[in-house]
Amino acid sequence: MNLHQFNYPKPFELENGKTLEKLTITYHTAGKLNEQKDNVIWVCHALTANSDVFDWWKGLFGEDDLFNPKDHFIICANVIGSHYGTTNPLSINPKTNTPYFSDFPTVTIKDMANAHQLLAESLGINQIKILIGGSLGGQQALEFTLLNQTKIENLVLLATNAVHSPWGIAFNETQRLAIEADESFYANKENRGQNGLIAARTIAMLSYRTYEIYEEKQKDLNNVYESFKASSYQKYQGQKLANRFNAYSYWLLTKTMDSQNIARNRACLEETLNSIKAKTKVIAISSDILFPAKEQKFIADHIPNASYHEINSSYGHDGFLVELDALKEILKDLA
Amino acid sequence: MNLHQFNYPKPFELENGKTLEKLTITYHTAGKLNEQKDNVIWVCHALTANSDVFDWWKGLFGEDDLFNPKDHFIICANVIGSHYGTTNPLSINPKTNTPYFSDFPTVTIKDMANAHQLLAESLGINQIKILIGGSLGGQQALEFTLLNQTKIENLVLLATNAVHSPWGIAFNETQRLAIEADESFYANKENRGQNGLIAARTIAMLSYRTYEIYEEKQKDLNNVYESFKASSYQKYQGQKLANRFNAYSYWLLTKTMDSQNIARNRACLEETLNSIKAKTKVIAISSDILFPAKEQKFIADHIPNASYHEINSSYGHDGFLVELDALKEILKDLA
Repeated sequence: MNLHQFNYPKPFELENGKTLEKLTITYHTAGKLNEQKDNVIWVCHALTANSDVFDWWKGLFGEDDLFNPKDHFIICANVIGSHYGTTNPLSINPKTNTPYFSDFPTVTIKDMANAHQLLAESLGINQIKILIGGSLGGQQALEFTLLNQTKIENLVLLATNAVHSPWGIAFNETQRLAIEADESFYANKENRGQNGLIAARTIAMLSYRTYEIYEEKQKDLNNVYESFKASSYQKYQGQKLANRFNAYSYWLLTKTMDSQNIARNRACLEETLNSIKAKTKVIAISSDILFPAKEQKFIADHIPNASYHEINSSYGHDGFLVELDALKEILKDLA
Repeated sequence: MNLHQFNYPKPFELENGKTLEKLTITYHTAGKLNEQKDNVIWVCHALTANSDVFDWWKGLFGEDDLFNPKDHFIICANVIGSHYGTTNPLSINPKTNTPYFSDFPTVTIKDMANAHQLLAESLGINQIKILIGGSLGGQQALEFTLLNQTKIENLVLLATNAVHSPWGIAFNETQRLAIEADESFYANKENRGQNGLIAARTIAMLSYRTYEIYEEKQKDLNNVYESFKASSYQKYQGQKLANRFNAYSYWLLTKTMDSQNIARNRACLEETLNSIKAKTKVIAISSDILFPAKEQKFIADHIPNASYHEINSSYGHDGFLVELDALKEILKDLA
């Protein structure tokens, strides 16, 4: 995919009334916008992903995949607050000439959707053939649709929700507490809070996977009483994220996920979903404990032109990235 | 209940070959051992509980409860490594004349069972009418039974397992990583690692409860985008434990839970369970995600004289402490 940047020329106002003096949006594209401007696939990415969809959603997105740049103009924007190029806690705060770190303002899902809208306008896009996102990406896709400024033809929501649950918030708060337990986080310097970030990621892993998949992949066969495979796996996953992400962005983005509530300052939840015109596919993973299937069922039940699809998988929430064959089957009529 | 201490006069050898030079066991009793010595109820406590069963299992144990001191001699011993009086990481290591802190040797469930056996012998107890424990307590009860040195008439196992799962180990490793993210833990001083302990406890809460119970009790009704009830609840629960427990004991005891594998250095798992003679009741909580019901079903399926009981509850693992009416119904024929 091709990497681009868009610099918004004005201050960017956030839902909480605060302002980002500068907003740079980093995004990737593949393919070309056709003359009718009706071949756009817009992808919203999840918590720690970047805007290079061909990198993290291979098998669904790629040169020869279901969603490919020959037929489509594929675009994905890195979200505000993320580590991958869009304005984030490591960016310079123009007011202080130092990085924001933990002074970065709270960003909501709606703020992320507003940033997508600005980028769409800058590219002359006022119609999206397929808007797709899983998890935090699905939350954005819902809010982006509800802005009612870009016409969304098909909406695909995977393993996501309309309101983040108390359970999901508790999982995120626990991750922030782990980061805060690492006192270096408060130093507001680069590469601090990393041990906290390691612990936080291992908490997230528990919410992304299941008892069954740990049983299948991390079971010890010998008679040990410590140094178990499951312990090594947790440490490995924590370190892997810490090598590519920063604690300040992570802390911030978990709060963004918590903010998801499409009914905030709108009509009630059911009516808000009922107002969506897009042809919608809502996809659940049967074993998802973080965004349980009933949350997607609720969305599908209240969007008028929606179908509900449940993928039977033991992968849990991560299933939306892993169960590619099942996804392709559900999505093939859109391509 | 009455508080006692037993000082074992010899070094106590651990499963890993290391030795505790001194072993003090703190325990509580209520009632009197009758002449026939056949009225003993022995309780094994869970991860962060103490030996005062009337304090934490009220409604099941108490002056006028199903298990009461008029009919029974009730005894519970604080486990090795715990914060509540038995030799633990804050005890003085006779070799260094300073507290052990993180130098305390790894303790297995079998070591805990061996300590219970020593205490039983010191009290002239060679027969237990009811041996009962939930979670880490159930793990001990299984090992205590398998020592085959005290005759166990009735065994009651709640929300526990014969082998700790990779999933359970991952939850515990994650808690240890949260404690280790708090660098003060490595100072090996009193009251250190407390912020890590707060985060660790909030992780544990997620494994003790369920999506449903957070939805029921921690849902926000207003239009907020941060400062949610579920966040406050996590912080409250973390702080509450940190006010009464220490990080070194907590870190150690999670490793003890991980060590549970009754087949280690024995025959295979099924044969080991098959060797248990006690009349056994195995009790599961339907929504337990940490020790899922299938683990208890497995135990009940392989102990010859066992019955399986599943309590339908949305409380998750904590159900074994909360669902008292259902427990009394299952246990009433034992009293």
